[in-house]
Amino acid sequence: MAGEFQLIERIRARVARRADVPLGIGDDAALLQPPPGVQLAVATDTLNSGIHFPPETAAADIGWKALAVNLSDLAAMGALPAWCSLSLSMPDADGAWVDGFLDGFCALAERHGVALIGGDTTRGPLSVCMSVIGFVEPGAALRRDAAQAGDDVWVSGTLGDAAAALSFWQRGEPMPDGLRGRLDRPLPRVALGHALRSLANACIDVSDGLLADLGHLCAASGLGAEVDVDALPASPALVALDVDADTRRTWQASGGDDYELCFTASPDRADAVIEAASASGVAVTRIGRIAAGDGVVARSDGTVWQPDRAGHEHFRVP
Amino acid sequence: MAGEFQLIERIRARVARRADVPLGIGDDAALLQPPPGVQLAVATDTLNSGIHFPPETAAADIGWKALAVNLSDLAAMGALPAWCSLSLSMPDADGAWVDGFLDGFCALAERHGVALIGGDTTRGPLSVCMSVIGFVEPGAALRRDAAQAGDDVWVSGTLGDAAAALSFWQRGEPMPDGLRGRLDRPLPRVALGHALRSLANACIDVSDGLLADLGHLCAASGLGAEVDVDALPASPALVALDVDADTRRTWQASGGDDYELCFTASPDRADAVIEAASASGVAVTRIGRIAAGDGVVARSDGTVWQPDRAGHEHFRVP
Repeated sequence: MAGEFQLIERIRARVARRADVPLGIGDDAALLQPPPGVQLAVATDTLNSGIHFPPETAAADIGWKALAVNLSDLAAMGALPAWCSLSLSMPDADGAWVDGFLDGFCALAERHGVALIGGDTTRGPLSVCMSVIGFVEPGAALRRDAAQAGDDVWVSGTLGDAAAALSFWQRGEPMPDGLRGRLDRPLPRVALGHALRSLANACIDVSDGLLADLGHLCAASGLGAEVDVDALPASPALVALDVDADTRRTWQASGGDDYELCFTASPDRADAVIEAASASGVAVTRIGRIAAGDGVVARSDGTVWQPDRAGHEHFRVP
Repeated sequence: MAGEFQLIERIRARVARRADVPLGIGDDAALLQPPPGVQLAVATDTLNSGIHFPPETAAADIGWKALAVNLSDLAAMGALPAWCSLSLSMPDADGAWVDGFLDGFCALAERHGVALIGGDTTRGPLSVCMSVIGFVEPGAALRRDAAQAGDDVWVSGTLGDAAAALSFWQRGEPMPDGLRGRLDRPLPRVALGHALRSLANACIDVSDGLLADLGHLCAASGLGAEVDVDALPASPALVALDVDADTRRTWQASGGDDYELCFTASPDRADAVIEAASASGVAVTRIGRIAAGDGVVARSDGTVWQPDRAGHEHFRVP
């Protein structure tokens, strides 16, 4: 069994360096040199075993996902990620588990040039608390509260794969590979969020479920929205499942854990939005419209549609 | 039982505002505007129930301590704290517990002008993960690795109160009030750390125990140290306890949880150090000397002295 200091050395040996980190892991605090004139975007998310991921999830997938959910938050602000701190609680100091965790973490961190700059390791139930810091020009960040009546509502990628995967897990059945990857290794839409800075009016990432998260955006903007659930994008893996259309729509509309971007933009920006998304390597789909009022109304075939259950919220009994 | 969003509103309503926080709690990420030219100092510490504090600790004391241990890390760098993010895991969403936590947190945050800028609340075993960001001029930060042979070794305040309090708790006896406050509500030495920027060569905060933390400083600096354990400062409450001198010395030398600053400075700075400490409202005591070699040698009455046990390390079986 490794000690805390051996674990920290193990982590320090593997993390990427950045020139704007004058002092990284190993002192009482890290020292960071932000570029002149930027604002910092800071996101923090905790993943607890059994709550945010199945206990049998591979360490590498946990390492990937802990970073991915935080990068997704920065993407939703249009910020470019730079630095990350990690607080890892583990029942015992398992060096092999930490190596696996770093495999997944480093694979995603390298893609986005993120440096791990510090944190701590403690004894306790398995829990990963991560904070990520990124940069955005003053006034350029995408916010939830700036949607305009008449805006198109867009969503990136496809919806519902993670929720479908989770439903297999909850029934004790093996998760199909094409879906499981979306649950375990979500792809944060960092390039898209950055490209939308000058195009979108408001943006949020889809973690609690599309309708719930769009509801947060509408509430913050003091507006409502209409969504065509038949237009929600689905992956080939999801379409291939032998389930009824309403179950599939529920996964797409309120399943959560998608880590796609839901954003609003003036209709006259539609072509530019599609072009920016294409340059970012991800498709976008127009799914609705912002309007006066409050709340999100979902329609299927022109009639009001309700999911089987609302988007999930921690602490709410299922 | 409150939901997650109600809890977040509860927190948002009570936290201090700062002009350099263009967007605080409530979006995917917070937006922060650092002053021109500064470096950022970032510290992260997690407190788990039953590991870092007795389970029956009052919520207000946990709120205070979670911030205090992070501010202590910034103090050890000479940085001035500004922003804080909080990730709170709780078995259930207990609004009264959160109110109590905020009582303690806000009392300390207000003293140091710290704004809570975001974080998350999740379901899980009670755990508080906090990151604090502060400012320091480039090149001015105090580090562990810059001690010089011949430096005096100093420590602020007094040592051993928290360890003594914990020993009462471990025996199931009530903790004396004068000691318990040091365990539950440590005072981070922010003003002292800031004043030492131009005076000290190296600095660390005493969390694992004086000898252990001075050992980290020596290892980082590639040097050794001698410490006179008879010179270690003790509070009147500690001196008043009916315990043998060796037990008291062990609490002082290796008990941990003191959150005092241990720092080194050239002997010709001694008067300036004492003056700066006095201006910061805390006493400092010269307890030893940095020398060539490695490791920390403690002496009492001129002979080598060993504590009953070494400084604590997470994951090490007691």
